[in-house]
Amino acid sequence: MAGWPTVRIRIDLAYDGTDFKGWARQPALRTVQGEVEAALATVLRVPEAAVTCAGRTDTGVHARGQVVHVDVADDAVTASAGRSEDPPLAALHRRLNGVLPPDIRVRRVAEAPAGFDARFSATWRRYAYRVADGVVDPLVRNHVLAWPRPLDLDAMNAGAASLVGEHDFASFCKKREGATTVRALLDLHWEREGDLAVATVRADAFCHNMVRSLMGCLLTIGEGRRPPTWAAEVLAAAVRDPSVTVVPPHGLTLEEVGYPADAELAARADATRRLRVPGEEPADG
Amino acid sequence: MAGWPTVRIRIDLAYDGTDFKGWARQPALRTVQGEVEAALATVLRVPEAAVTCAGRTDTGVHARGQVVHVDVADDAVTASAGRSEDPPLAALHRRLNGVLPPDIRVRRVAEAPAGFDARFSATWRRYAYRVADGVVDPLVRNHVLAWPRPLDLDAMNAGAASLVGEHDFASFCKKREGATTVRALLDLHWEREGDLAVATVRADAFCHNMVRSLMGCLLTIGEGRRPPTWAAEVLAAAVRDPSVTVVPPHGLTLEEVGYPADAELAARADATRRLRVPGEEPADG
Repeated sequence: MAGWPTVRIRIDLAYDGTDFKGWARQPALRTVQGEVEAALATVLRVPEAAVTCAGRTDTGVHARGQVVHVDVADDAVTASAGRSEDPPLAALHRRLNGVLPPDIRVRRVAEAPAGFDARFSATWRRYAYRVADGVVDPLVRNHVLAWPRPLDLDAMNAGAASLVGEHDFASFCKKREGATTVRALLDLHWEREGDLAVATVRADAFCHNMVRSLMGCLLTIGEGRRPPTWAAEVLAAAVRDPSVTVVPPHGLTLEEVGYPADAELAARADATRRLRVPGEEPADG
Repeated sequence: MAGWPTVRIRIDLAYDGTDFKGWARQPALRTVQGEVEAALATVLRVPEAAVTCAGRTDTGVHARGQVVHVDVADDAVTASAGRSEDPPLAALHRRLNGVLPPDIRVRRVAEAPAGFDARFSATWRRYAYRVADGVVDPLVRNHVLAWPRPLDLDAMNAGAASLVGEHDFASFCKKREGATTVRALLDLHWEREGDLAVATVRADAFCHNMVRSLMGCLLTIGEGRRPPTWAAEVLAAAVRDPSVTVVPPHGLTLEEVGYPADAELAARADATRRLRVPGEEPADG
């Protein structure tokens, strides 16, 4: 297709991670990327369609605000609309949801602005972690962690406050050779929402297991087994602490990805590509 | 156990109806009643424990506020607590949730006040029906109906208003010989909650399929295929109308059951027993 006109499409996705082996395509395993790429290939009638995502969610992690991009030939989009009277991208949206399994839904399909890269243009990722510290509502047990003891959110928020900012989060990250573990944690706090305790966690990017390790540290504080000051102590040690639990993935949902104004998308993508070493994905889970 | 002291226990339940063949125990089928009675027998170490519920939910219908009662020997409750330092009913609560599958949770266990009958003392049942008329969030797709077209809630509420009150709801009920279809519909209205359209439906009791037929009628109005006045026309005909769809069960959740003040429980139960003919259950779905 070299030289043929292509268009970059932004697709916003939601999925229930329960029955997926995470985001990244893997042979013979059911993954979100694998299902989305297969659906695109079917609907666009192309041999393959490679998508790039903003946050590579781990096995069992959910998303309401995942963002991906895919580059496709102009004429494939037009042809896929067939005889539909809808605009081609509206028809693509509808057909993708017709082909995708019910645990993945396309929320939005749009032509990406110039310079947009779902991964490298992103300025932040926001996750929620949901915990029921009473009896868990069985209707939402797929995306809420049942915690057997009451949680002290004031203590958790005191601990959380000491982690916000740009730090080396090595204590909360699975070690990868040569990869930086410095991240800007933009927001970390807990709130009550009905029966639930809900954490908001927002950062420029996350290293592997970082959100779930932060949650493990704060839940330990929340049930009183460690004081709020423990969070800062773990952070200062700057080495992976085995007493920090990595909590289960099913309480975690990628809620939103932030991008700069259109005029800054390309510059942001260039800057991120320089910052992140090859092989280091903004994975999480 | 004749003559032995027994105690009536009230148990508040929540369940995800997806994987149950409804409430009522049936041989060789997985039902909520079957699971709850088996769990009680195990925890109390008795051969059987028959429970009575407030609302016999159909296959696929959920509950957050189901109420049941069970009569058990005093000494079985005490014995089941074993060496636990908790009060016996707190220990029973914890052990039931330990034995029950994750799609049923006990929310509360308490000694029932004198005269309490989970079914006959109840003064009303409140259900919610949840519909996503945009893209359904896959995380809640187990208890939200995906509706492919936008809904006009003002039209639905205009239709709903004409149904509130005491009427013969034969047009919305599956016919049963000899059973009255007169019900007091205490509340019926729709609201937006985020991406969802949520109906609140409250009545003294419901006949079979009544909630799901009311929803079918109002959804037809909501997408503009019938005017709001159609609801009153269907009601006035007083005979089951095949053009009224019975919507799928998975959008329906029993949210709450109302009881009178303790002093009135026994009188209310007596009055209901006289009103309802034998064999007619306050079933729904």
